[in-house]
Amino acid sequence: MAKSRFEYVRNYELPDPLMPGTFIVVRIDGRGFHKFSDTHLFEKPNDKRALDLMDQAARTVLDEYKDVIMAFGESDEYSFLLKKNTKLYNRRRSKISSSIVSLFTSAYVFHWLTYFPDNPLRYPPSFDSRVVVYPGEKEIRDYFAWRQADTHINNLYNTAFWALVKDGQSTTEANKTLQGTDSKDKNELLFSKYGINYNNLPEQYRKGSICVRRPATLVDDRQPQQQIEESITAGVSNVSIDDPAVGSVEDDSVSQTRINGVIRKEKKIKKAKPYEGIDGEIVVLHEDIIRDGFWKERPWFLQ
Amino acid sequence: MAKSRFEYVRNYELPDPLMPGTFIVVRIDGRGFHKFSDTHLFEKPNDKRALDLMDQAARTVLDEYKDVIMAFGESDEYSFLLKKNTKLYNRRRSKISSSIVSLFTSAYVFHWLTYFPDNPLRYPPSFDSRVVVYPGEKEIRDYFAWRQADTHINNLYNTAFWALVKDGQSTTEANKTLQGTDSKDKNELLFSKYGINYNNLPEQYRKGSICVRRPATLVDDRQPQQQIEESITAGVSNVSIDDPAVGSVEDDSVSQTRINGVIRKEKKIKKAKPYEGIDGEIVVLHEDIIRDGFWKERPWFLQ
Amino acid sequence: MAKSRFEYVRNYELPDPLMPGTFIVVRIDGRGFHKFSDTHLFEKPNDKRALDLMDQAARTVLDEYKDVIMAFGESDEYSFLLKKNTKLYNRRRSKISSSIVSLFTSAYVFHWLTYFPDNPLRYPPSFDSRVVVYPGEKEIRDYFAWRQADTHINNLYNTAFWALVKDGQSTTEANKTLQGTDSKDKNELLFSKYGINYNNLPEQYRKGSICVRRPATLVDDRQPQQQIEESITAGVSNVSIDDPAVGSVEDDSVSQTRINGVIRKEKKIKKAKPYEGIDGEIVVLHEDIIRDGFWKERPWFLQ
Amino acid sequence: MAKSRFEYVRNYELPDPLMPGTFIVVRIDGRGFHKFSDTHLFEKPNDKRALDLMDQAARTVLDEYKDVIMAFGESDEYSFLLKKNTKLYNRRRSKISSSIVSLFTSAYVFHWLTYFPDNPLRYPPSFDSRVVVYPGEKEIRDYFAWRQADTHINNLYNTAFWALVKDGQSTTEANKTLQGTDSKDKNELLFSKYGINYNNLPEQYRKGSICVRRPATLVDDRQPQQQIEESITAGVSNVSIDDPAVGSVEDDSVSQTRINGVIRKEKKIKKAKPYEGIDGEIVVLHEDIIRDGFWKERPWFLQ
Repeated sequence: MAKSRFEYVRNYELPDPLMPGTFIVVRIDGRGFHKFSDTHLFEKPNDKRALDLMDQAARTVLDEYKDVIMAFGESDEYSFLLKKNTKLYNRRRSKISSSIVSLFTSAYVFHWLTYFPDNPLRYPPSFDSRVVVYPGEKEIRDYFAWRQADTHINNLYNTAFWALVKDGQSTTEANKTLQGTDSKDKNELLFSKYGINYNNLPEQYRKGSICVRRPATLVDDRQPQQQIEESITAGVSNVSIDDPAVGSVEDDSVSQTRINGVIRKEKKIKKAKPYEGIDGEIVVLHEDIIRDGFWKERPWFLQ
Repeated sequence: MAKSRFEYVRNYELPDPLMPGTFIVVRIDGRGFHKFSDTHLFEKPNDKRALDLMDQAARTVLDEYKDVIMAFGESDEYSFLLKKNTKLYNRRRSKISSSIVSLFTSAYVFHWLTYFPDNPLRYPPSFDSRVVVYPGEKEIRDYFAWRQADTHINNLYNTAFWALVKDGQSTTEANKTLQGTDSKDKNELLFSKYGINYNNLPEQYRKGSICVRRPATLVDDRQPQQQIEESITAGVSNVSIDDPAVGSVEDDSVSQTRINGVIRKEKKIKKAKPYEGIDGEIVVLHEDIIRDGFWKERPWFLQ
Repeated sequence: MAKSRFEYVRNYELPDPLMPGTFIVVRIDGRGFHKFSDTHLFEKPNDKRALDLMDQAARTVLDEYKDVIMAFGESDEYSFLLKKNTKLYNRRRSKISSSIVSLFTSAYVFHWLTYFPDNPLRYPPSFDSRVVVYPGEKEIRDYFAWRQADTHINNLYNTAFWALVKDGQSTTEANKTLQGTDSKDKNELLFSKYGINYNNLPEQYRKGSICVRRPATLVDDRQPQQQIEESITAGVSNVSIDDPAVGSVEDDSVSQTRINGVIRKEKKIKKAKPYEGIDGEIVVLHEDIIRDGFWKERPWFLQ
Repeated sequence: MAKSRFEYVRNYELPDPLMPGTFIVVRIDGRGFHKFSDTHLFEKPNDKRALDLMDQAARTVLDEYKDVIMAFGESDEYSFLLKKNTKLYNRRRSKISSSIVSLFTSAYVFHWLTYFPDNPLRYPPSFDSRVVVYPGEKEIRDYFAWRQADTHINNLYNTAFWALVKDGQSTTEANKTLQGTDSKDKNELLFSKYGINYNNLPEQYRKGSICVRRPATLVDDRQPQQQIEESITAGVSNVSIDDPAVGSVEDDSVSQTRINGVIRKEKKIKKAKPYEGIDGEIVVLHEDIIRDGFWKERPWFLQ
């Protein structure tokens, strides 16, 4: 098409490639979510509906971007890890960062009513995002350990804080009560005064949410039905399978979708490289990612 | 709160400040909107509902970010201009870029049903964004001229293209028919064959949409009702006042909202610096921004 | 030639273009020049030989890089201004910054003996450099005003400081004596106690050095000899023509070189655009660049 | 000191920190060295004096910057590797890059006469520099392998090329003769036609120069004299000990300097961490750095 004499302004768009051979993390954060959670009457210290909605938005990102190999979320933030040698958008910083935060936001608003059916959205929420690049396996593990440690620290504090507030303290008083306390003090307070055993609280609150693809080969050599039953009865103690959004997205019930999914994909899976897990279904876990176990089960993440 | 031994990973978050004293443009672009517009049965070559929804999302951005002084949109893209000396987020590139694209996306999904009441959203759409920095007035004017010239070129082409297609040509044939034609040829084709006088098509299609704040002082020294009437009968030939979203946002009809708006803001307006126009209501125009007129009326934009 | 399997490491060399249409300043700074000036017994507060050597190194840069339109130096630093639309090295930040600091350093060492014939270099000195980009005329003028104001402030302080030290105070005492004094106090001290009228000190010390090309057209319509004579007798009160290095570089005496220069270049000059001054000889001035005069005489600098 | 109203221009100096925990390589390259080597009558295909001078300039850099752990040079280029966790200049890109290229250039000019006593420098040469950041050990090894492979490829070509030219071919003819030949062809040509066994040419030409510090502990538990003798008789077949510059720098003969060096530093060495080798003397090697040996002997380089 014809070029205008104004085209030169394109030269001001400078390149912003990220270093090759490094791990890209995109972290999104809610903007003004203190007010947003008040306006929408989120339960304190944790609103399971809100956390599940965050998880659903993260799943949407993993579903769209095959190079996002895992995500970790807590509260109003989520971190996405891209595979080391991703060529997504030629590793352009802005493109990667903006596309992910936009899709996450879009999915959050799109799925709102599924998670808050009686609580319509009052105004459009938003998130910011940043890209952080890490050179190696150690730094990536420490990054996610940092976020999960943060989840624990914040949740323990918030659990104690809201227990005090619900017990009649003002927020100022509750903050003051907790000032200078360590983890043991807070656990003790919760247990002795409110009968709360912190370690029995839901793992989703204490450990955050991890979005990953189930390795495709796990479903390969067993009967689909057997696998589903196992998932439901045993292995899924900390997998969110009671996900109200799945129906609306895939027009089908969870287990049927999964059976069909397995059947539909079976041939394709056999050709896929077994360790990549790209075709596997996306699951949300709530488990420890600070220790080695999680990473040893997924050696391809950090290769 | 306690610090974990993983905190060092924060050092990998490097600063990304934009040069001071320059104009920041954030341009957002629809991702995969060819498919999105097909799936959602957008009318061709222009779907007024879709354009109005884009305009509404842009208004939301201007409403939230006082330092965004204007925006220009066409098709599935929108460009936002920040005032030269903005301190928004300390001019951090990622923060500015991501917050704007996230809010735009959120508003697009949030307001969807207002513009497509019979056409529910099938999946969450997304946009990318980039920041471009311009040193001076000339480059900014040329940037917006570039986008508006692009609007014209694309719209003329698409209008001719879809006339041919609706007339029975395949898309391949239509492209071929138009190959090598200039503006005059396309105008001639539209007029002689289809009786379409291109210059009579809606300005929104030919010139795109400009989101600006009406200078606060314009509403100051007249009676609110008089102003509204004038707006409706005269000056607003190219202002979108038939905006279906306004009601749902402000719980009131358009003219009443404006009357109330004027009344509510009157005292505040008198204190505002008359040339800043920050407190003025946001309007969407469809006029020429290539020539001097638009900019001469708003000398504070480029100062 | 054959490519090795290691070639991929080149992909880690990321682009670093500077924004188009802006002013690029490269500022170089001596590293460890406190020690360097002590080791090489520089006179205090100003060593004319050292300043002339800095000026000579800057001339070498202007001589090599036609897009460097001016330079300003004081003490052990020098700032180089590139013309707004320079395409030098495709505006690559590292390439521009490193090439200039390297050539400057090289010329400094190369010409050392010309300025310090009895004082051989004891070890190789070095400089660092940085690039700063400015969007417009105002910022560039303020940048150079900032450096020249700094020259004045530092020189007045150092002049007073060394007067006190030479008078018997320790450096600690001298610093203490000057603590809290303003310009007027220092002028007064110098005059009343040491009979020094600060304003009569050499302009090179008080105003720094400005390296520019004499506009080529100035020599065009007059007889070469006439021009030289005028230069020597009148206009050059603050031009360094007693430059001991010129001879060694061009194998000729100053005035003859210049006469020859004019004669040799006469035809070429007539074709050159009169306002560019690219072909003009490089001169070192010591005059005010804070006020308008300097810039008004050279309108092409900031266009 | 007083601040001027122009100080705001400092805000245009934006931060440029390099990612933590990565390997920084600074590569410097001669500017216009084709012409420079012609003007200064460098011998072809290799001028040992010129290469030794390059090595000497690199030694100066290692001597000044303890965080530069090795350097590799060939022809008119040199690459410097900084240790992974260097805090040099807070990892500011420009500061690191410019300081190193400036010191290298300065040392090159400073030492010129030592290497070219009968061939004074005609004009100041210069180099550019760039910073490249690598995430891990593999990439660093491949980087240096890439440069050393390049040395080999270029030197084989140049050796054949200059043999042909000295034999009477024009440069154009020589280029044509070599077009399409592989390594084996060139080796064969050199041997059959000119009796040159390429593998017997000096390692400095075929493998380039590696500047490293001799690990401090290697000299610790042996008698200094014994170590020197071993160096001279055995291990140092490819160490440049006939370095004419050393005397002028260290005011002593090579072996004595080394003996003294060992003696002088002995106590200090015992306290130094044995693996760091920071206090060790700087040596120039000409050996293979593509294979594992070099790196296995220096495990601290890539940690």
